[in-house]
Amino acid sequence: MNVPVPVLVWCPFPEAGSAKAASRALVEAGLAACANILPAMESVYAWQGAVHEGAEVGVLFKTNADLRERCIERLSELHPYEEPAILGWECPLSLPATMAWLGALKG
Amino acid sequence: MNVPVPVLVWCPFPEAGSAKAASRALVEAGLAACANILPAMESVYAWQGAVHEGAEVGVLFKTNADLRERCIERLSELHPYEEPAILGWECPLSLPATMAWLGALKG
Amino acid sequence: MNVPVPVLVWCPFPEAGSAKAASRALVEAGLAACANILPAMESVYAWQGAVHEGAEVGVLFKTNADLRERCIERLSELHPYEEPAILGWECPLSLPATMAWLGALKG
Repeated sequence: MNVPVPVLVWCPFPEAGSAKAASRALVEAGLAACANILPAMESVYAWQGAVHEGAEVGVLFKTNADLRERCIERLSELHPYEEPAILGWECPLSLPATMAWLGALKG
Repeated sequence: MNVPVPVLVWCPFPEAGSAKAASRALVEAGLAACANILPAMESVYAWQGAVHEGAEVGVLFKTNADLRERCIERLSELHPYEEPAILGWECPLSLPATMAWLGALKG
Repeated sequence: MNVPVPVLVWCPFPEAGSAKAASRALVEAGLAACANILPAMESVYAWQGAVHEGAEVGVLFKTNADLRERCIERLSELHPYEEPAILGWECPLSLPATMAWLGALKG
């Protein structure tokens, strides 16, 4: 049986509360196996023609290549921003046990 | 029209001041759409034959595949280290709205 | 001479002490050139059929494609968890000087 490639997804949130709620929802739904919610960070970003600064909370989600579209879609539904920044990439160089853990996600 | 693939670039700085200045410069220049400046971290690293420890501030820049070379080059010019560690990778598994946002970068 | 592609490896630890010890061991062994130990984060994760929450410390290791298997293997031996989550990916869009620095790793 082919184990799907692990995927990491990076997504900043406006604050820890919404980050934690979305993390719980995705893990409980089996669309991510883990969410690492980092401590508050500062963001500098371009939006609607101007440069802004603000505090955000970054989250790194662990999922797999088969579930990534549904994971990203559900994450954007759960997210408080109209247009959240959600970036995902494959992690083929992972520990076999990690690949099995993420591959077992039911979603 | 082909939207370029989103790219994330990871780069540690010696402290928050230079990290913020470089972040603003790259976003204002249209070479990155966003910079996430993480809180202080500890680094253990090999340099000139010895192992060192020190505090650093890590930044995650969001750009796209068409601009990444110019973004990385400008980042290394802005950076206070003689030889900054700059690592970039493509994020093809991203939300379409995120790809459009990063794809619109003029650079 | 072909310089191997840089690789980043993300791995959460239960706390800073074991994260620092593993970081020093991998850098001293020449299996990683640098370890960025981020400040404490919160993790939400699925394990043995239940959803758990807990504090962790994330580390981002810099190595190269030729050493990544031995780096990941040694990391899992050093790690206090029975089954650590270890995810690695290639970073081909890096500064040439960074590629040379990581390419020089002896391992």
